[in-house]
Amino acid sequence: MKPPIDFYFDFSSPYSYIASEWVDAVAARHGRAVHWHAILLGATFQAAELKSPVSHPIKREYSIRDFGRSARFAGLPYVMPGKFPIPTQNAARVFWWLHDTAAPERAVAWAHTGLRAYFTQGHDLSDAAVLRGVLTDAGIDVAAAEAAYTDPLWKDRLRRENDAAIAAGVFGAPFFIVDGEPFWGNDRRAQIEAWLAGQADFDHTLM
Amino acid sequence: MKPPIDFYFDFSSPYSYIASEWVDAVAARHGRAVHWHAILLGATFQAAELKSPVSHPIKREYSIRDFGRSARFAGLPYVMPGKFPIPTQNAARVFWWLHDTAAPERAVAWAHTGLRAYFTQGHDLSDAAVLRGVLTDAGIDVAAAEAAYTDPLWKDRLRRENDAAIAAGVFGAPFFIVDGEPFWGNDRRAQIEAWLAGQADFDHTLM
Repeated sequence: MKPPIDFYFDFSSPYSYIASEWVDAVAARHGRAVHWHAILLGATFQAAELKSPVSHPIKREYSIRDFGRSARFAGLPYVMPGKFPIPTQNAARVFWWLHDTAAPERAVAWAHTGLRAYFTQGHDLSDAAVLRGVLTDAGIDVAAAEAAYTDPLWKDRLRRENDAAIAAGVFGAPFFIVDGEPFWGNDRRAQIEAWLAGQADFDHTLM
Repeated sequence: MKPPIDFYFDFSSPYSYIASEWVDAVAARHGRAVHWHAILLGATFQAAELKSPVSHPIKREYSIRDFGRSARFAGLPYVMPGKFPIPTQNAARVFWWLHDTAAPERAVAWAHTGLRAYFTQGHDLSDAAVLRGVLTDAGIDVAAAEAAYTDPLWKDRLRRENDAAIAAGVFGAPFFIVDGEPFWGNDRRAQIEAWLAGQADFDHTLM
């Protein structure tokens, strides 16, 4: 078995949503597993002195247009959430809580549910009542999830994941690390596929 | 004849160099012409409150790696210039001088020569002596070019092009406008091709 792909995402990242819908299938075609990492873009942006694309004049309008267009190009449903971006620490802590106490697959299932709820239904995951409904739909014990995301243990778990991501060179999302090679953005899919296929004109020779 | 594609580039943009090598061929396959626009990223960055990707910690190292990898993925030669980024107003003013006084095709030929000199040979276009050599290689009258790029007329021409680009929503490079639809980045090539082909699942229905 070849090394797994590390996949970093934020619940409030449209391009992460798009990538979340293909990353497992692409990896599986090349005999790879995927290690999913819920992170906070706010933390990586701070480390890299970046801001959300929608915080920049001119780029804001383009980005909102490109989110929906890129989803449509990938054949995915998409709605621009009314509130965007949103703080996602609670959704991300639930991810790590499920990852560590249930199974990584449960955490990935939650990632899909959360990303789809936000980007296809516009459900604001930063609103406790809305989050409760989405957790219920996902078949997750709501009281236990709420206890987890307010627990310093899981706050710290997420903080350490953010720190580890930054230390690994992650400055945005989605972000992929394959065999030590970093790829940023949903639009690096073709390069990732070429890398995984070991194409002769794009092999593991670095610049 | 369908409307031309507007293509905006900066002589110091690696992704512009990559896009410059495919944009005409892709457009021609779909019966489109390309209107090339030399602009200054510094001006668009200022308008959109952005900085060069290499001005950001963490993102800097990734970007330098990605420039070469993306060129290799496109099958193009690439060297990371020793001095990067560089001010490109003189090269851009020569572009507009050729565009207006000779022919747009002469300007495009200069764009290719300049981009290739910088990104495959590392020739610093911001150095007057180096620029002189590259202009000579391009078969351009060096004295006339130098007179042009120090002339307020061509300084103003470039300034107006920057302003017009910003007014059209351009905040980075390469940037493409096709039928009024904006596309940013070399990595939007697949979407541009789909747009030009009028694919049923990616037609001109906007979000």
